[in-house]
Amino acid sequence: MTDLSQRYVPVDHAKVDFTGGFWESWTRTVREVTVPSQHRRLDEERFLEVLNFDQPPGPLARPIQPSGLSMQHFFDSDFGKWIEAASYTLKAHPNPALEEKIDEIVAKLAQGQMDDGYLNSWFIRREPDKRWTNLRDLHEMYSMGHLLEGAVAYFEATGKRAFLDVMIRAVDHIEATFGREPGKLVGYDAHEEIELALVKLYRVTKDPRHLELAQYFVDERGQMPSYYDEEARRRGDDPAHYHYQTYAYSQAHMPVREQTQVVGHAVRAMYLFSAMADLAYESSDLTLLTASDRLFDNLTRRQLYVTGGLGPSGANEGFTREYDLPNETAYAETCAAVALAFWGHRMAQIELDGRFTDHVELAIFNGALSGIARDGEHYFYENVLESHGQHRRWKWHYCPCCPTNIARLIASLGSYFYTTKPDELAVHLYGANSAEAEIGGQTVRIAQETAYPWDGDIALTLTPAAPAQFTLRLRLPGWCSKASVAVNGEAVDVRTAEKGYLAIARQWAAGDVVRIGFDMPVERLHAHPEVSEDAGKVALKRGPVVYCAEEADLGFAPQLLVLPADAEIVAAFDPDLLGGAVRLSATAGKTSHAGWNGQLYRRERPATEVTQLRAIPYHLWANRQAGGMAVWLREQF
Amino acid sequence: MTDLSQRYVPVDHAKVDFTGGFWESWTRTVREVTVPSQHRRLDEERFLEVLNFDQPPGPLARPIQPSGLSMQHFFDSDFGKWIEAASYTLKAHPNPALEEKIDEIVAKLAQGQMDDGYLNSWFIRREPDKRWTNLRDLHEMYSMGHLLEGAVAYFEATGKRAFLDVMIRAVDHIEATFGREPGKLVGYDAHEEIELALVKLYRVTKDPRHLELAQYFVDERGQMPSYYDEEARRRGDDPAHYHYQTYAYSQAHMPVREQTQVVGHAVRAMYLFSAMADLAYESSDLTLLTASDRLFDNLTRRQLYVTGGLGPSGANEGFTREYDLPNETAYAETCAAVALAFWGHRMAQIELDGRFTDHVELAIFNGALSGIARDGEHYFYENVLESHGQHRRWKWHYCPCCPTNIARLIASLGSYFYTTKPDELAVHLYGANSAEAEIGGQTVRIAQETAYPWDGDIALTLTPAAPAQFTLRLRLPGWCSKASVAVNGEAVDVRTAEKGYLAIARQWAAGDVVRIGFDMPVERLHAHPEVSEDAGKVALKRGPVVYCAEEADLGFAPQLLVLPADAEIVAAFDPDLLGGAVRLSATAGKTSHAGWNGQLYRRERPATEVTQLRAIPYHLWANRQAGGMAVWLREQF
Repeated sequence: MTDLSQRYVPVDHAKVDFTGGFWESWTRTVREVTVPSQHRRLDEERFLEVLNFDQPPGPLARPIQPSGLSMQHFFDSDFGKWIEAASYTLKAHPNPALEEKIDEIVAKLAQGQMDDGYLNSWFIRREPDKRWTNLRDLHEMYSMGHLLEGAVAYFEATGKRAFLDVMIRAVDHIEATFGREPGKLVGYDAHEEIELALVKLYRVTKDPRHLELAQYFVDERGQMPSYYDEEARRRGDDPAHYHYQTYAYSQAHMPVREQTQVVGHAVRAMYLFSAMADLAYESSDLTLLTASDRLFDNLTRRQLYVTGGLGPSGANEGFTREYDLPNETAYAETCAAVALAFWGHRMAQIELDGRFTDHVELAIFNGALSGIARDGEHYFYENVLESHGQHRRWKWHYCPCCPTNIARLIASLGSYFYTTKPDELAVHLYGANSAEAEIGGQTVRIAQETAYPWDGDIALTLTPAAPAQFTLRLRLPGWCSKASVAVNGEAVDVRTAEKGYLAIARQWAAGDVVRIGFDMPVERLHAHPEVSEDAGKVALKRGPVVYCAEEADLGFAPQLLVLPADAEIVAAFDPDLLGGAVRLSATAGKTSHAGWNGQLYRRERPATEVTQLRAIPYHLWANRQAGGMAVWLREQF
Repeated sequence: MTDLSQRYVPVDHAKVDFTGGFWESWTRTVREVTVPSQHRRLDEERFLEVLNFDQPPGPLARPIQPSGLSMQHFFDSDFGKWIEAASYTLKAHPNPALEEKIDEIVAKLAQGQMDDGYLNSWFIRREPDKRWTNLRDLHEMYSMGHLLEGAVAYFEATGKRAFLDVMIRAVDHIEATFGREPGKLVGYDAHEEIELALVKLYRVTKDPRHLELAQYFVDERGQMPSYYDEEARRRGDDPAHYHYQTYAYSQAHMPVREQTQVVGHAVRAMYLFSAMADLAYESSDLTLLTASDRLFDNLTRRQLYVTGGLGPSGANEGFTREYDLPNETAYAETCAAVALAFWGHRMAQIELDGRFTDHVELAIFNGALSGIARDGEHYFYENVLESHGQHRRWKWHYCPCCPTNIARLIASLGSYFYTTKPDELAVHLYGANSAEAEIGGQTVRIAQETAYPWDGDIALTLTPAAPAQFTLRLRLPGWCSKASVAVNGEAVDVRTAEKGYLAIARQWAAGDVVRIGFDMPVERLHAHPEVSEDAGKVALKRGPVVYCAEEADLGFAPQLLVLPADAEIVAAFDPDLLGGAVRLSATAGKTSHAGWNGQLYRRERPATEVTQLRAIPYHLWANRQAGGMAVWLREQF
């Protein structure tokens, strides 16, 4: 296990400027379209009304859901995540009109906050006496956690303290209410989020109480007898009537350090594990790191879709059994893949290991990015890997957690590219950008020229203010079986790479160029036989990008396709495909429609006719006309 | 189109005695286990409490469902169907203790019935002022229809009139309330059932008002403007808020004679079409027959599972688009396949055509029978065609419509074997039995000696009281491509068969033996390519029986199987398989687990290893340990 004494620090996204190409386009879309349109939705869909503390509560804007929950219980979380995403865009691109919208929300929250610091707009306006009576179901700390993340991001973007101060008062109230000290409730929120938000707050305030509170929540989780049992009985409920039946739904079935299998609600799990990594980072707690590491392996070796999506089941929005990865009914919530990126990014700051960053990259190019339409204002909540055309992107959702989550990830994506130590620069992701990092007190300019992910050639130029000795650590992606690296024309032996990172220690001077070549053939992937849904099938991947066949290109259901094992698959950039992307094509077979005379079933096997497979990046599906889609294609051999 | 002037009359099930073999075993199970155990469930599960009219209503025995409905609204339908099933068993097997249980229910219903004849136990006890305010959602006539079918069956089995008289009063009340006459509501129940029940009543009472009321309901259905719109507005509801959004859900989107595609809730559709056939039968209404005939083709050529299951979607318990037949998420409610048998049986009484009886046989041996466990007291509501082990049979259901439906079908299955005209005997189904029919006023004894469906050889012996001239019409099943028929050793040319029935007109004398041979090889069936779920796959069928591969036999997920196109498939009777059944076996391939080192995805294609396919009749699945199942198997060619 890694020495925890020295950790990596990410280069802030505001210091990473995307200079054309893939992420320039996506971050611009999020800044110019997604963030403003989401505020419009919050307004049009009457979410913001919940903040009108000076008016009587009125009828619910949204009906009570089948679960018995009003989604309005946790609308605050949507405000928090939207402010966070908006703040990330503000940091490098000031926008007074946008700040004004945020300030309006902050002013209302400040107005509504109770005297003792409690803050949840729904409870304050409707059932203040019921606050803190149901941590199991009602997400109060989850909502405050998202407000807190928003407050930290807004403070860091603008220097304005008002929101941060509101949230520090809220945290003071939480701290006064929960804990092991006499008179406090020994509780913790069933939907994790406050924990990682408190670590973010601590990094701003340096107040150890903020870290300790996070540590308390993580340590208390899953201790028996369960707080949720006690709490239910206090409400007069029978704990046995719990809708989800097991506290594994909230990763609260056993202490976190004992957990070996990723279970329950996928987003909750990812947020918890992110917080565990945060605490390991801050406090060098090896026991938390070990647990987090083990769970990362469990997820990625037994429970992860090939797209980086996770959590197959809608019933618990999460995990079922290992290797249960159905394609058409995949839940694979956008938020979960977004949060996998959070977790992997945190782990790689402690332990430089490509298995973490490979999965960050997998999620951001595939299972997370598929959650937002190319137009930047339509979404998927569930990211299926197969469709018969019934799945369409929506403009808004009754539980719109995903839109703001993917927005805040993309708006801060620069932060995932580089981390530093006093004598190191680690490069995790590739893509055209121009950045600035502090290494050993010196500013180093970094530039990547590349068409990545469409091409594996990267020219990385380093420009320290003055010549400087440090180690460059380049991630060699796990998907790449043939890489080449040269510094100023001189080859580096890539076989010296450890855990997916190639170290180059030297004195760097302005204009040093590292040329990187990642061979990027189209790969055919096969799933472990326990994933019986994928037996006899193949998925196509090129570099970090997973492909799918879509009816919009084929003109017929992609389930009719059969790809010969020896088919040559050609990759070509198409500038007209949804802003430009590499398409794949191959000669393939298709089950023929010929010779059916009104029968539904017949003895004779349908003929196979020659057709052209055309595949597009999975993240771009459902941006054109309705129709079927498949990531896993039948393979003929 | 058929001449409607002369129709076939079914030989009553009480005249058909199963003498060993397949249906003897199932009818005995239903009589000895299913019927008594269902009464126990109705009692244990507190369904019968709804009939305690002398007590205050008390809390609901069942919570309100997500749809906003209390299932108790229509518990009466369960009593009706259970009494109907019980009555069928009583008719040939008197059972005073069982009669006593029925009489208790009847007495309570009689006690609760309102002075004006209204009868619905839930409304009478809880919301008498709300009766008849929501025909769209609340199933009052559906419930009364099932009570009515029960009352007719009980009257026919025992001659007791009490229940029939209660229900005639209820029908009088319905007739006084609904119709086109001034002062009546021009409404009809959204859940069809009363229509076919009224025809059954008419056949007992011969009261033309009963037939006219059925005709009114069928004729009024789907007329615009919709009664449900008006009715919603009278309740103060906005019709636009209708949960199912379209009245196609209830086949009430257009007049029934204009409907060309089977849509909406599958059981509703089958009950409606059965009533349309009944009315065509009774009134020679060719327009209804034409519509019913066209819809039968639409269902069976574009929307029917290979098992005879129907209605793919749980969202509307019914149909979506043509060719949408997903396997693992198949809804294919037991009740729907049961009701397909009702419909096909009725159509064949008007029009002797094998396409009707072929589908009756398909449903009863497969998609309907799969709804009841071999032990006779566990059930499926949804009859999936593929599972990863998550589907298990249940003892009771929050909406237990299916158990009593499959029970009444099996308990009356004898009625599906023979129909007569004054000079004809039509044989529709095969299976060991000894029966008695009236043909031209003369009693003819019929005996079938056969191991059908495990074997296609049948010895049919006819014993008229005295030599008699009539035409025997033998169904030559559509699944059979090679049949032979001989009368007293003399071959009959089967090529003379028309619409699947072979006519043999002669003078019949006691002991005449018709030997029938249906070749019964294992057939490989392929689905139309528009059923893209089944592309590249094959289903196995032998005679009328559809097969599946079950993990209980294989020891691994059946999705890993691949069946070579040239594999020889061996059929053999196994007396130890769940009471005895023919198993299939073949040498096949299986995706190998070898060589995976903790990877979830890899480039190398998994090897295929040799294994043994073992398949059992689909209707017998999920009677042993939990595990996967597949009807459609990957085919290698």
